[in-house]
Amino acid sequence: MTCITLLTDFGTADEYVAVMKGVILAVAPGIPVIDITHHIPPQDVPAAADMIVAAFHWFPVGTVHVVVVDPGVGSSRAVVAAEGGGHFFIVPDNGIPAVLNDACPLDRIRRVEAERFFRHPVSATFHGRDIFAPVAARVAAGLDIAELGRPVRSEALARLPVVPPRKSADGTLTGRVVGVDRFGNLLTDISEQLLQDCFAAFYPDRLRIEVGTHGVCALYATYSDSPSGRLMGLIGSRGHLEIAVNCGSAKDHCGAERNTLVRVRSVPKMY
Amino acid sequence: MTCITLLTDFGTADEYVAVMKGVILAVAPGIPVIDITHHIPPQDVPAAADMIVAAFHWFPVGTVHVVVVDPGVGSSRAVVAAEGGGHFFIVPDNGIPAVLNDACPLDRIRRVEAERFFRHPVSATFHGRDIFAPVAARVAAGLDIAELGRPVRSEALARLPVVPPRKSADGTLTGRVVGVDRFGNLLTDISEQLLQDCFAAFYPDRLRIEVGTHGVCALYATYSDSPSGRLMGLIGSRGHLEIAVNCGSAKDHCGAERNTLVRVRSVPKMY
Amino acid sequence: MTCITLLTDFGTADEYVAVMKGVILAVAPGIPVIDITHHIPPQDVPAAADMIVAAFHWFPVGTVHVVVVDPGVGSSRAVVAAEGGGHFFIVPDNGIPAVLNDACPLDRIRRVEAERFFRHPVSATFHGRDIFAPVAARVAAGLDIAELGRPVRSEALARLPVVPPRKSADGTLTGRVVGVDRFGNLLTDISEQLLQDCFAAFYPDRLRIEVGTHGVCALYATYSDSPSGRLMGLIGSRGHLEIAVNCGSAKDHCGAERNTLVRVRSVPKMY
Repeated sequence: MTCITLLTDFGTADEYVAVMKGVILAVAPGIPVIDITHHIPPQDVPAAADMIVAAFHWFPVGTVHVVVVDPGVGSSRAVVAAEGGGHFFIVPDNGIPAVLNDACPLDRIRRVEAERFFRHPVSATFHGRDIFAPVAARVAAGLDIAELGRPVRSEALARLPVVPPRKSADGTLTGRVVGVDRFGNLLTDISEQLLQDCFAAFYPDRLRIEVGTHGVCALYATYSDSPSGRLMGLIGSRGHLEIAVNCGSAKDHCGAERNTLVRVRSVPKMY
Repeated sequence: MTCITLLTDFGTADEYVAVMKGVILAVAPGIPVIDITHHIPPQDVPAAADMIVAAFHWFPVGTVHVVVVDPGVGSSRAVVAAEGGGHFFIVPDNGIPAVLNDACPLDRIRRVEAERFFRHPVSATFHGRDIFAPVAARVAAGLDIAELGRPVRSEALARLPVVPPRKSADGTLTGRVVGVDRFGNLLTDISEQLLQDCFAAFYPDRLRIEVGTHGVCALYATYSDSPSGRLMGLIGSRGHLEIAVNCGSAKDHCGAERNTLVRVRSVPKMY
Repeated sequence: MTCITLLTDFGTADEYVAVMKGVILAVAPGIPVIDITHHIPPQDVPAAADMIVAAFHWFPVGTVHVVVVDPGVGSSRAVVAAEGGGHFFIVPDNGIPAVLNDACPLDRIRRVEAERFFRHPVSATFHGRDIFAPVAARVAAGLDIAELGRPVRSEALARLPVVPPRKSADGTLTGRVVGVDRFGNLLTDISEQLLQDCFAAFYPDRLRIEVGTHGVCALYATYSDSPSGRLMGLIGSRGHLEIAVNCGSAKDHCGAERNTLVRVRSVPKMY
């Protein structure tokens, strides 16, 4: 018994997600289909890439993950099927597979081009229904992705113009906000590992964090370690630096949003 | 293994949808229950009718579809169970069954009146929980809908005051916007078949489309065939004329909403 | 075949709910996981307590209910597992178990402290993923909650500062709005039983209901018994007094919100 996850920018007010599930269930009756989210901002490919990397590895090995954030639908962009770490992915080749490969090297990548596995006629506007859903259901039912099409080398995957966090000569590590959650927590692209690599003697109480032009804070272990209403840094559930306010919203507190810069440096002792 | 779909105007912030699922699972343990949407505008029966017609046929034959958009709950309006094209429907007789019958002739229609299949006591305000859910679960588990009550003739079904698209003497086909999706795409009631019937020589590049008083555009095959930011017509995933903006929102572009008129006429050659 | 329900304040835009489902499915493959809601206002423990009480008993006996509205995550607040009426609950000890125990006496309550059932390493910020989800999956798979930790006496549970409805010397029963649903219906803490207990001769047409400082109305059997656009009281689907407007929003009509006072008294005959 495996399962399928869906990650789209379709929202949940229209019938699009349900139609994909209907097509999946027609091919693979009874298979559990789990929504990761359908609230990716329309056509925001980098946000979808960050989220699938954050979410997929919590599912059982053998899960088939489908991402349809696909501004290029109907154009010549390819769809790829990939296997990595025991998980399967059916995604448009618009930067998402390259981000996945960076996070967890993909063992096999194939073009999805064997039309006998598609729903026909294939529409020009809804490949989620006509290609991604039926192909994912077949892979979940045991189809070898080698049946889907030619191999793709990871070097040939389309790449997003992502700027990774970097450390400057004066010892400041600069990353950015890559997401804001429902609680107003600011998720960054700075991993705990990177903090440890950058700051030789990694004493959390000696790091000073600046968010945009306003917020300044220190690093804590968990929300309740900081006074209510005060900005704080902590290692969040993605294993990355997160900026939060205990019982409040860091977003509202410092006016930050996606791509706001986050700077970390070592200080003698802050508090 | 069959499944049940739910389409309501309950939203997802309250417990109403979950309670229906609990009742279903108590009757039919383990059955997959798929949400079509719960974000139909409150009491908007025509929107619910359009959506169930657009969505149901993508599910496997044998699926039981439940629609609870039901401003008449507690009044004398009937609930009906119907079978058509191998699908089952449990819906209030408020126009939705008539729209379904127009789209896909129903083979059998029964009144839902056998109280032994209801949850008791039946509340006056939540028939979704007390009638629709337990009856749907029993039908999914194999109950013949003939057990539910007397036959209903399709001519006797309640009808919505719907104005279908029409072609005027000067050759203009006039329909309307019946929905706006998350991307700002305008869904119309003009089917591809109707376009072909109305315009003898159906050259897509010779159709001129007007939306409300502002937008004018031509017909394309898919989103990416039009320049970014420009209004376009295309045949959308419902098989109907859709007005879109590649990487943008047609709704914002031309200020259209549900019921905005859409006019199509043939021109010598537009572009 | 049992199932698991989830009730959180996580929203559905982030990956948090999906990650919990992934962890559950890795422990208990194929188990149905039903969302009660994820739209509890952030950290609103009383709203979560009201909703789990309203929803849980509609699910089959044996269901495992998980509530993660947990401002104290990472602090010393306990997590408890409880059994009551054949249902299981995995909840933070922040007032929710005490409210459950008042509504439906819990037969057994245990501290969740046996770390061998947790996911490791346990993060400081996401116990939903690392403790609640894996423990719930194991309980659903048959683990006896006695394995999870020491017994807890119900008197020792943390309590919310809730003010129950009360009847004053002049015969007025005063409660409050505890929720507003998508239709603008005002849900109160006044149960039908309490109305019957307070008003010896319980003639619904002799009760006068005041909402805040504006609304005044009588009690009806169902929405359609009142003229459109007019404020009305009725016994809603939770079995409590609800204030509604037929085909309209009581919230908009009388500017009420959570905690607005609701007064009921007996009058000779109102209409």
